[in-house]
Amino acid sequence: MNKVLFCIGSRANYASCKSIIRACIDRPNIITKVVVYASAASNEFGQLTQVMSNDGVVIDNALSTLLVGDSPQQMAESTGLALMKLPQVISDHSPDIVVTVGDRFETLAVAIATSYMNTVLAHTMGGEVTGSIDESIRHAITKLAHLHFPATELAAQNIRKMGEAVENVHMVGCPRLDLVSHADSMKLEELEKKLRSFGLGDYVDVSKPFILVSQHPVTTEFSSAGDQIKSTLDAVDAIGLPIILLWPNSDAGYEHFNKNIRAWSNKKVTYPRRLFRNLPPQVYLKLMSITSCLVGNSSSGIREGSFIGTPVVNVGSRQRGRECASNVLHVDSSTTEIISAVHAQLSHGKYSCSRLYGDGMAGNKIASILGSKITAKVQKDLRF
Amino acid sequence: MNKVLFCIGSRANYASCKSIIRACIDRPNIITKVVVYASAASNEFGQLTQVMSNDGVVIDNALSTLLVGDSPQQMAESTGLALMKLPQVISDHSPDIVVTVGDRFETLAVAIATSYMNTVLAHTMGGEVTGSIDESIRHAITKLAHLHFPATELAAQNIRKMGEAVENVHMVGCPRLDLVSHADSMKLEELEKKLRSFGLGDYVDVSKPFILVSQHPVTTEFSSAGDQIKSTLDAVDAIGLPIILLWPNSDAGYEHFNKNIRAWSNKKVTYPRRLFRNLPPQVYLKLMSITSCLVGNSSSGIREGSFIGTPVVNVGSRQRGRECASNVLHVDSSTTEIISAVHAQLSHGKYSCSRLYGDGMAGNKIASILGSKITAKVQKDLRF
Amino acid sequence: MNKVLFCIGSRANYASCKSIIRACIDRPNIITKVVVYASAASNEFGQLTQVMSNDGVVIDNALSTLLVGDSPQQMAESTGLALMKLPQVISDHSPDIVVTVGDRFETLAVAIATSYMNTVLAHTMGGEVTGSIDESIRHAITKLAHLHFPATELAAQNIRKMGEAVENVHMVGCPRLDLVSHADSMKLEELEKKLRSFGLGDYVDVSKPFILVSQHPVTTEFSSAGDQIKSTLDAVDAIGLPIILLWPNSDAGYEHFNKNIRAWSNKKVTYPRRLFRNLPPQVYLKLMSITSCLVGNSSSGIREGSFIGTPVVNVGSRQRGRECASNVLHVDSSTTEIISAVHAQLSHGKYSCSRLYGDGMAGNKIASILGSKITAKVQKDLRF
Amino acid sequence: MNKVLFCIGSRANYASCKSIIRACIDRPNIITKVVVYASAASNEFGQLTQVMSNDGVVIDNALSTLLVGDSPQQMAESTGLALMKLPQVISDHSPDIVVTVGDRFETLAVAIATSYMNTVLAHTMGGEVTGSIDESIRHAITKLAHLHFPATELAAQNIRKMGEAVENVHMVGCPRLDLVSHADSMKLEELEKKLRSFGLGDYVDVSKPFILVSQHPVTTEFSSAGDQIKSTLDAVDAIGLPIILLWPNSDAGYEHFNKNIRAWSNKKVTYPRRLFRNLPPQVYLKLMSITSCLVGNSSSGIREGSFIGTPVVNVGSRQRGRECASNVLHVDSSTTEIISAVHAQLSHGKYSCSRLYGDGMAGNKIASILGSKITAKVQKDLRF
Repeated sequence: MNKVLFCIGSRANYASCKSIIRACIDRPNIITKVVVYASAASNEFGQLTQVMSNDGVVIDNALSTLLVGDSPQQMAESTGLALMKLPQVISDHSPDIVVTVGDRFETLAVAIATSYMNTVLAHTMGGEVTGSIDESIRHAITKLAHLHFPATELAAQNIRKMGEAVENVHMVGCPRLDLVSHADSMKLEELEKKLRSFGLGDYVDVSKPFILVSQHPVTTEFSSAGDQIKSTLDAVDAIGLPIILLWPNSDAGYEHFNKNIRAWSNKKVTYPRRLFRNLPPQVYLKLMSITSCLVGNSSSGIREGSFIGTPVVNVGSRQRGRECASNVLHVDSSTTEIISAVHAQLSHGKYSCSRLYGDGMAGNKIASILGSKITAKVQKDLRF
Repeated sequence: MNKVLFCIGSRANYASCKSIIRACIDRPNIITKVVVYASAASNEFGQLTQVMSNDGVVIDNALSTLLVGDSPQQMAESTGLALMKLPQVISDHSPDIVVTVGDRFETLAVAIATSYMNTVLAHTMGGEVTGSIDESIRHAITKLAHLHFPATELAAQNIRKMGEAVENVHMVGCPRLDLVSHADSMKLEELEKKLRSFGLGDYVDVSKPFILVSQHPVTTEFSSAGDQIKSTLDAVDAIGLPIILLWPNSDAGYEHFNKNIRAWSNKKVTYPRRLFRNLPPQVYLKLMSITSCLVGNSSSGIREGSFIGTPVVNVGSRQRGRECASNVLHVDSSTTEIISAVHAQLSHGKYSCSRLYGDGMAGNKIASILGSKITAKVQKDLRF
Repeated sequence: MNKVLFCIGSRANYASCKSIIRACIDRPNIITKVVVYASAASNEFGQLTQVMSNDGVVIDNALSTLLVGDSPQQMAESTGLALMKLPQVISDHSPDIVVTVGDRFETLAVAIATSYMNTVLAHTMGGEVTGSIDESIRHAITKLAHLHFPATELAAQNIRKMGEAVENVHMVGCPRLDLVSHADSMKLEELEKKLRSFGLGDYVDVSKPFILVSQHPVTTEFSSAGDQIKSTLDAVDAIGLPIILLWPNSDAGYEHFNKNIRAWSNKKVTYPRRLFRNLPPQVYLKLMSITSCLVGNSSSGIREGSFIGTPVVNVGSRQRGRECASNVLHVDSSTTEIISAVHAQLSHGKYSCSRLYGDGMAGNKIASILGSKITAKVQKDLRF
Repeated sequence: MNKVLFCIGSRANYASCKSIIRACIDRPNIITKVVVYASAASNEFGQLTQVMSNDGVVIDNALSTLLVGDSPQQMAESTGLALMKLPQVISDHSPDIVVTVGDRFETLAVAIATSYMNTVLAHTMGGEVTGSIDESIRHAITKLAHLHFPATELAAQNIRKMGEAVENVHMVGCPRLDLVSHADSMKLEELEKKLRSFGLGDYVDVSKPFILVSQHPVTTEFSSAGDQIKSTLDAVDAIGLPIILLWPNSDAGYEHFNKNIRAWSNKKVTYPRRLFRNLPPQVYLKLMSITSCLVGNSSSGIREGSFIGTPVVNVGSRQRGRECASNVLHVDSSTTEIISAVHAQLSHGKYSCSRLYGDGMAGNKIASILGSKITAKVQKDLRF
């Protein structure tokens, strides 16, 4: 019987964990605990609680750890605040394993708290190569983690190159892909109903062609955050198709993004535009499977997009170096480049399914290991 | 003109930085700033300020970041506290480069604050392989750092294996060796005067054979901390030579160590024993060069010890896997094993000088790079 | 020569300090230092820095101390964060006197940091009686403060009743009144220019009758925050005059307010409505001097309003018990009550000037005492 | 059914709460919760847990909130840390009433967290007049508290003068007196057994005359802390009777005290001296009832001492202004003054019992009110 504690810092974190958490809850040999913190415990808290409750997931603890403001300094201090509060929760639950996800700034606090407290840390989606500070964070977490669940063969190989013992590296695929099959079965009427109940702005008819935009600030290019989102917004306006835009996450640069998105949404245009602060993962995935083109720098275009076959225009450095299937066109943060790439994708249409990031069964594979006898030792034994 | 900020968390940290700081101060193209935090800003503060001032080093900021207590939870929370306070200092100084050292728990706060704030982080003594949580911390810092100053060829190779770009990895040797030549020139009378002015307990005549003990808690073996120090103390008592003991650092397990050392020092014995809470690096190095045997798990035995030729008995897992010259005998934390290894070293006597950890010129080499045009980019570009 | 440190937590705090800071800067025997923190250092920071710079005030330090979210728990934790960061600034400046203002939640952190650090604390606007948690905070600060600058005779008397020594209680009037005369001299064209350059929504022609709304959450009635602002917004809509609304401060309840204000501003109406997140104090005071009626629960209606003669409808419990001149009508948070009181004020028109809250010279009086030999002792000597 | 949360910051805090907690646990209409924090959760934790467990008291939460070091700055920052952590515990338990005690620095964090979170705060031992920063803290807490349990008539009167409503001020006597009767019944053999099992240094035969010393740093006289304890230690050495000394609490100045006590204990003298870091309240009270003279500045001499009849020499400003029975002689921190006052007390011998600080039934009286319908309103209604 293993007690497994999941630490969820944001709505994106939750989407990446959902299939693992569900698989853990379903196993009799796992006690599942969930703590939310950072943006998951503050600005997103209301919605996320609802979403998780609908999924049958109970939140055991909620920790306010996010400072107002989006400067790199505030991002660092918020991580410190998380690191001051998480140890108490870990101590209270005394889990056998703590699970953390990916590469967001607050995630490193989970990794430090867990490893310093001599508890086994499991990490999903390690070993990948991208741009932004996420790159450094992801690999630093790998060096603190004891169990690794990379999403691709190349990522698994990178983790081993960093000295991690081969028996602790489990290539399972990306758990976010697990949500795709459920999403695909959603009826269009159901999707339309959900799109009406969330969001701000005009209604977008998703039975016709539309552009989906999902772009986040690049924390290492903090000062040009405003320009970056502006290039993308100008480009998608130039296409002239209806637009569905997702609000960025609260990284350094967030407030610059906010301001530009607000200004953009106030401009009068002839086609409808709708903004969403938060979408249930299934709604978002359904949109990915029917959009004419996804524009931005969300990793979803590369990961779930490859599996779904979404035409993607990936903008700027945030996903630089990340393994891609053929569904992704890379461009710089330039309005003209973005426009021409979107036109290319509109001509191509939907791609066929790639297994680069897994087969949609990662949650079960991970839960199976989390429920087994833990062989990873707290004292790491590196093999360079 | 580069502004370089040094973050010093403990007396050991300072010893590892001293020759670099001195070399930076001496260069006209470097503005040198120094912040002390963690134990360097609290229990050690009085003495350390004096030592640094004698060395001509000015402390620009002192930050209280250490919680009372020595549990792994308090160690994690103290790191969080450091991460909440360091960003303000980094912002105030706006350095071109921040320098951090080694692998102590609080050091990771410097690495996160600096890298999240898009500032170049230089790290010394990375890439080595040892035991304890230090192992994880050291490599996590490597993944956040932009400039690497490893102490050995093997360490440099490990850093490159972890994906760091070859042009940012500079094998310079260990800066702690730089202090050895100065120490060697100290006269015995001067040493004796200093030993009288510090310390508690009996006077130890260092012109005759004596054992030097320097052992720290192993944070991943927190619960057996008390037993570990007891094995060592029982063993050195069994030898029957005079003993000089250095107080351990404030890691998890510290208070268990404290208690056992206090009990030990109250026992009546026939040979003199002296305890030191803090020693100027030069006094410690001079002791290393004349002791019959150094016992414990301090990395100094392996690093400076190899260069000096000190006979060393290394106890337990803390330095497990670390590259060693022939001067070190490894034993488990067992009284009988320690006793027999000490006897072996007493028979052997002093070793000849090894260049495994450098040539005593690391400070100058590092300062030369810190003063040059910075080519390392904040956005890391990994090569797996 | 006294060094005086001002701690500014919000734009309202700054308005309350501005005339004192200016008077201190003008005196050769005072060194003036200014730290901003809480909302003044985060969401308001950009604008406030500009405003202060225009006033010739230099910000020496800015501390991020505000957590995302507006629950009472987050308000308490943000105060704790301020109390963790302010002591370093106080230690760095080593002021002779720290000045804090009024009764906002974060202000108590200044009072504790200063008094615990054995530094003389001066407090303005103490001794008044109102509703909300402000009431408790204000008097708790009085018990930590050494020098008291109450705004009215009755407030001074209350401070003495609480045991404070008579020689440390200086009735000087409210420093916010000092800004009124400057504001009165502002030309209408200048006002109109400024109103165009700030704010969101329709343009409001201030040469014609308009309603001014300034309402803040009542932290002790946190759960009904949304209803309270709604009552007021419904009432002013029912009047049918153009409306200028000021954004509330970031107290517990803020996000409920936000949501209702956003919904309200999206409703279509026949008269113009303009929203301001931040206004230079002088612009706000000019609006107070020409509005047909000020509605809400801002203390400004009672304080500056009495001096200016503004017709005020004060809603709910937030200012309950506060001394008022005849310009204020009190009503519960009920739409019908608010409507009828606004009509009564529209019939009455502007009131004559009252000296209840001072004569507009408080800043000079306070600066004169801050520049004199400090006789208040750190060790308080109470007289019950 | 009321849920009552006790916040215990130190061993002294626990002694002041013990009889209330016991009386609450015994009442079927009260759910009793206990959180320990500050020194109670760090250096004292081991012993205190044992003591409380022996008393049948369960610790629900333990929070590390104490920074290493004893400067006023660290005291302020530790209070901030407590204020960052306590709100989560209050939120988790959602108590009807939080109980806090007296006037120590960390206590103000409880008062702020509770009152900001719109929860009823009960405060014991308010309204008294003393020296040191305690004086300011005690009255600031009164202004944040909703229910007051003062120990004397004069204290109750002071609380009412500060504007607190008469119906919320309950004169119940000091709960620390409740422990006296139990202690008195302890047999001398039992006392001797306990004194042997704790403590450091020589054994003191308590069946013969001995001096008891209990002195704490005065935080507002931080810089002379070392001199103050030295005066007292020199004086009691001059008397020539056996000495039992209690370790001071961890206020600003603590480390200066530590150093002097350590030096003193190393001096060779002809009479026995024993040091205790922590004593169960009952053992301490038994010592108070049989000592020839209690010397220092602990409030216990004035409070419990008046009830027990202990001859007390109260040193310096810490208890200045506190109501006293005839058993106390006040002197400055001067060796000669202390010596002559101790001689006067030795001549006088034990005093008769005074009811100034209550009748030993405070715990029951307070629990009776805590278990009743709560009439105190969160929104305070002052009466100046």
